[in-house]
Amino acid sequence: MNQKIFYPVFLDIFIKQNIGIFMLEQKIAEILGYEIPAAPKPVAAYLPAQKHGDLIFTSGQLPFKEGKLAAEGKVGDQVSEEKAIECAGICAVNCLSAVKSVIGDLDKIDQIVKLVVFVNSAAGFTGQPKVANGASELLVEIFGDRGKHARSAVGVAELPLNAPVEIEMIVRIIA
Amino acid sequence: MNQKIFYPVFLDIFIKQNIGIFMLEQKIAEILGYEIPAAPKPVAAYLPAQKHGDLIFTSGQLPFKEGKLAAEGKVGDQVSEEKAIECAGICAVNCLSAVKSVIGDLDKIDQIVKLVVFVNSAAGFTGQPKVANGASELLVEIFGDRGKHARSAVGVAELPLNAPVEIEMIVRIIA
Amino acid sequence: MNQKIFYPVFLDIFIKQNIGIFMLEQKIAEILGYEIPAAPKPVAAYLPAQKHGDLIFTSGQLPFKEGKLAAEGKVGDQVSEEKAIECAGICAVNCLSAVKSVIGDLDKIDQIVKLVVFVNSAAGFTGQPKVANGASELLVEIFGDRGKHARSAVGVAELPLNAPVEIEMIVRIIA
Repeated sequence: MNQKIFYPVFLDIFIKQNIGIFMLEQKIAEILGYEIPAAPKPVAAYLPAQKHGDLIFTSGQLPFKEGKLAAEGKVGDQVSEEKAIECAGICAVNCLSAVKSVIGDLDKIDQIVKLVVFVNSAAGFTGQPKVANGASELLVEIFGDRGKHARSAVGVAELPLNAPVEIEMIVRIIA
Repeated sequence: MNQKIFYPVFLDIFIKQNIGIFMLEQKIAEILGYEIPAAPKPVAAYLPAQKHGDLIFTSGQLPFKEGKLAAEGKVGDQVSEEKAIECAGICAVNCLSAVKSVIGDLDKIDQIVKLVVFVNSAAGFTGQPKVANGASELLVEIFGDRGKHARSAVGVAELPLNAPVEIEMIVRIIA
Repeated sequence: MNQKIFYPVFLDIFIKQNIGIFMLEQKIAEILGYEIPAAPKPVAAYLPAQKHGDLIFTSGQLPFKEGKLAAEGKVGDQVSEEKAIECAGICAVNCLSAVKSVIGDLDKIDQIVKLVVFVNSAAGFTGQPKVANGASELLVEIFGDRGKHARSAVGVAELPLNAPVEIEMIVRIIA
């Protein structure tokens, strides 16, 4: 946030704190057509994300939207590639929610470092990278160069609740 | 280890070194009903765990107990969910053994940061999170808040030696 | 590179810069019988590798050699264990290419920290560690103790382009 014009930092912070919407979240809402969901509630024995220094490791996120899975089943069978691409984007958004639960404000994200994209794959489905692009391209749309990451995409046998995609993320935050 | 009563640190170290049991390991033994096993022998080309700064990355650990797998086969078929939950706990203990092989004393663990739980899943088995809880809940029982971690749980097609569960761990140690 | 005989560092750098071959890459070429390939071109939305401090996280690499996959299909079925071991070695080399795309010179690698080896496994194939050794042993041959890493090896249901193996790597570089 290099302010090109004269614009005091305290004013920016004042506006953010009082309007309650952060710049990046506004951009995400514009791209998605909906606001980034509230961070998932901490489950008993594990957390949505854990901080280490300036890194945040998220838990694997499923494509939950408004409280339910956006699709169920294996990609290449019950779930189309197009639907899976959309689900990957939702997983990425939910990873950002998980990050937000730790740092409060997504504007503190310095770099998306790494994704692992697990695709619940029907026999013979080998388009995992295309599915993963649903997350990768959304992140670059939101963050620009700061959204460019390393990534693995693999086809797994089963996923929790029969979700078609699960994604975990490593993010660097501004120290 | 905030000593509430007057209790010199050197005495603590003296006792530890001479009795050979560390506090956390004693607690683990009480919870498990058996002592944390000796760290696995380094295999030719890779290590049980590798240190980077104040992080320890473990290798994926199988549910070996007293030299053999606690169960074999796919969860939801040859291996019940209950047995798999128990196996996940054994994997977590073996991850701690791997950490111990690098740092010597588990009392140096500051935070369990991240788990990846790979469940060898029969077709249609989608209870990976419940299986993973066998590891997560044990870690919180041992470490309290320091045991709360981010986690991914996925269902894989096959695992080494037909093990039902494999877990890898990232741990932060006290610098 | 502890020079046993008197050998000024600037001369080493001068030779490297002018001959254009770095010591470790020469060693790799001798072991492989071919030169380490050019780093893969950055794909639209993600990168071959991403740097964080003194760590490099690679993307998952497939066994591409001279522009095509060295084998296709599931290990234990269309792809033999021997061929899969060779493919794991190629994946490891491609991970090093990805690292090189970020740091320029593989001599800057301080430690191979972690591998995850995803093996596209036929039903009943449980030899993932043996396949993964194709990567681990090659890394130790190239780097010695600096090549010894933590590792997970799992059997997945499908991989991109029907590749038999995919490997991701974490490397520490000299700060």
